[in-house]
Amino acid sequence: MPQGKVLIAQGGGPTAVINESLVGAALEARGQPGVERVYGARHGVRGIVNEYFLDLTRETGENLERVAATPCSALGSTRDKPDLKYCRDIFRVLKAHGIGTFFYIGGNDSSDTLRILSEEARRARSPLRCIHIPKTIDNDLMVNDHTPGYPSAARFVASAFAGADLDNRALTGVYVGVVMGRHAGFLTAASALARRYPGDGPHLIYLPERNFAMKSFLRDVKATYERLGRCVIAVSEGVHDPSGTPIAVRLAKTVEKDAHGNVQLSGTGALADALTEAIKTGTGIKRVRGDTFGYLQRSFLGCASEVDRREAREVGIKAAQYARFADRDGSVTLHRVGDYVVDYRLSRLTDVAGKTKVMADEFIAKSGHDVTEKFLAYARPLVGALPAVQRLSPENTVEKILGKKKK
Amino acid sequence: MPQGKVLIAQGGGPTAVINESLVGAALEARGQPGVERVYGARHGVRGIVNEYFLDLTRETGENLERVAATPCSALGSTRDKPDLKYCRDIFRVLKAHGIGTFFYIGGNDSSDTLRILSEEARRARSPLRCIHIPKTIDNDLMVNDHTPGYPSAARFVASAFAGADLDNRALTGVYVGVVMGRHAGFLTAASALARRYPGDGPHLIYLPERNFAMKSFLRDVKATYERLGRCVIAVSEGVHDPSGTPIAVRLAKTVEKDAHGNVQLSGTGALADALTEAIKTGTGIKRVRGDTFGYLQRSFLGCASEVDRREAREVGIKAAQYARFADRDGSVTLHRVGDYVVDYRLSRLTDVAGKTKVMADEFIAKSGHDVTEKFLAYARPLVGALPAVQRLSPENTVEKILGKKKK
Repeated sequence: MPQGKVLIAQGGGPTAVINESLVGAALEARGQPGVERVYGARHGVRGIVNEYFLDLTRETGENLERVAATPCSALGSTRDKPDLKYCRDIFRVLKAHGIGTFFYIGGNDSSDTLRILSEEARRARSPLRCIHIPKTIDNDLMVNDHTPGYPSAARFVASAFAGADLDNRALTGVYVGVVMGRHAGFLTAASALARRYPGDGPHLIYLPERNFAMKSFLRDVKATYERLGRCVIAVSEGVHDPSGTPIAVRLAKTVEKDAHGNVQLSGTGALADALTEAIKTGTGIKRVRGDTFGYLQRSFLGCASEVDRREAREVGIKAAQYARFADRDGSVTLHRVGDYVVDYRLSRLTDVAGKTKVMADEFIAKSGHDVTEKFLAYARPLVGALPAVQRLSPENTVEKILGKKKK
Repeated sequence: MPQGKVLIAQGGGPTAVINESLVGAALEARGQPGVERVYGARHGVRGIVNEYFLDLTRETGENLERVAATPCSALGSTRDKPDLKYCRDIFRVLKAHGIGTFFYIGGNDSSDTLRILSEEARRARSPLRCIHIPKTIDNDLMVNDHTPGYPSAARFVASAFAGADLDNRALTGVYVGVVMGRHAGFLTAASALARRYPGDGPHLIYLPERNFAMKSFLRDVKATYERLGRCVIAVSEGVHDPSGTPIAVRLAKTVEKDAHGNVQLSGTGALADALTEAIKTGTGIKRVRGDTFGYLQRSFLGCASEVDRREAREVGIKAAQYARFADRDGSVTLHRVGDYVVDYRLSRLTDVAGKTKVMADEFIAKSGHDVTEKFLAYARPLVGALPAVQRLSPENTVEKILGKKKK
């Protein structure tokens, strides 16, 4: 049974539905006996050590519902990755404010922060309850079938490639779209959901689960272009050579790292530009264009998946229910139990924290540059139906009269 | 009264609603007495000289309606800009196929092709009827209040900046979004529609109608960042120095030109990367990210403006009606006659062809890096309401207990 105040925070990269989880947890906790107040920390753990809290108990339900429908962490986020000392600072603030339950909405790094905090609380014989609420567009949390935030970002990527493929049909050439995902290719793989007719792109999909070799890449692009007169390519920002060095880093002049030691791959068009340049030089194809989808993938207004919205709300609600009915810390995890039905469990923090799930081999085509039917069956119910795309029938071609052909 | 066959073609960059115009013209022409067949040329004028036609009379109305709802030129497009000889080739093919009416859906360059063709037809005393149907996401056609295709692209840009601004609030820093538009800033200006609360971004908007100076740019970014702790910037790909040289070209290593002699600005992240690098170096701000919206602006699935959809359909229908009831060639133009009401006219090809409209001074703020209320009033009815964005009330801040502040 929760005692004292409840604190909710959001960490890591925003998603289109992360506020559904916030509001789910806040509204559920607000209704529970024993809960004094529900606070939200501004900018994740940084807001905790700064004692920068919003009292969510004072928000109207109406306003909370609108916040839920708004993309990107409404409380603000942080890339801070607390060490033990930082966690002790957090611990002291939670104690001073009488906070008995802490929900942290985030990915691998956020769940690891919670793991340290949970272990510290047990050592100090504190009754602090720590529950991790999953979110990440990368879809790379262990134990989970998939992660809230991924389906909406996947919907953006599929919609972008469906449009880019139509554009590439209209004005032919080679198109490279670079998609987020450092270690896991799930988001890049979602580009395959854009296909409808035979011959639709993306024709080539490069994932970080496979080594990237420039030579075979250029060969594949050239062969596709010769076959179809055009080529649409999805590339993960995390593609790397056999040594594990990201292609983006190999091609970059300067390298920027975040607090977690991760090299910055997003927020720059360098990889797309380097690949289009390599294609022009290496194949002689003239019209080669590259887009880097960047931050729109996680923040674009009006592109959330309905399934994602419901599940993101539910993991928030479940966290508050586990805090009340389960007598332990943990991470709310999402499991597929039917087609399509999910269930939720409270898993151990150590099973999720700081680990990274990548795409299973059965999701990746033997060629190494496509996905399998199995992946499509996995991803389709998450993303939902895209707006229909229709073309004019090529069978209604009119017979030539002059019969000339201008190059 | 139209005689013989009707031919429709699509030229230039695709838009989200260009097929509404195609289908509007095709269905209207199909119902007219005297019309033998309605053909569509594959890939614009190139399809005509190649005699590559689809017989749209054989398409079901059902399929045409689905095509209408699909983004990007269903007939395919071209960047070919015909000279007089090319136009005579076109003329010969039209004659051979008994085509009495030609509708060309496109922007400045396509209307100029039609102007040459129309003049050639008059010289040859041919009864060929040439009517231009307007489209361009750049919104830069003369005579028109605005151009079909622009409202949907503007909706994409506004939705992208609304999301990017929320993202930048959650993880603060500087964000640069580069928007299409070589000479006209209308699309970049639409980013201002993303704002809802005071303090919302984009905080700075750079248009090709004003000279771009790196020094004052960096000063503005720094001042905004110091005031708000963050800064969201919209930049047109066409921003240039006082000599008219695009900043993207000044910073680029190699320059690619299309058949019209235009330097390629889209399909590369070079400008955004150069600007983020300049901001890092010039202001010392660490977290600086740049996105180039690229082809998604004109092709993204599921982001059309409803007003745009209706108007794009109407210019197609009107073209077929003018072909029947007006005894002259021309360009269908769109005029705002009320708030918000539009009317359509048949203007002279020479008034539209090959000309470029840029933003009026009254649409650009005195500072040179923002738009005016007048522009917002102009653009709002075109783009329509965006999904609502709501935030948690900052008034519910909890009082500190420990009172410490960690940097």
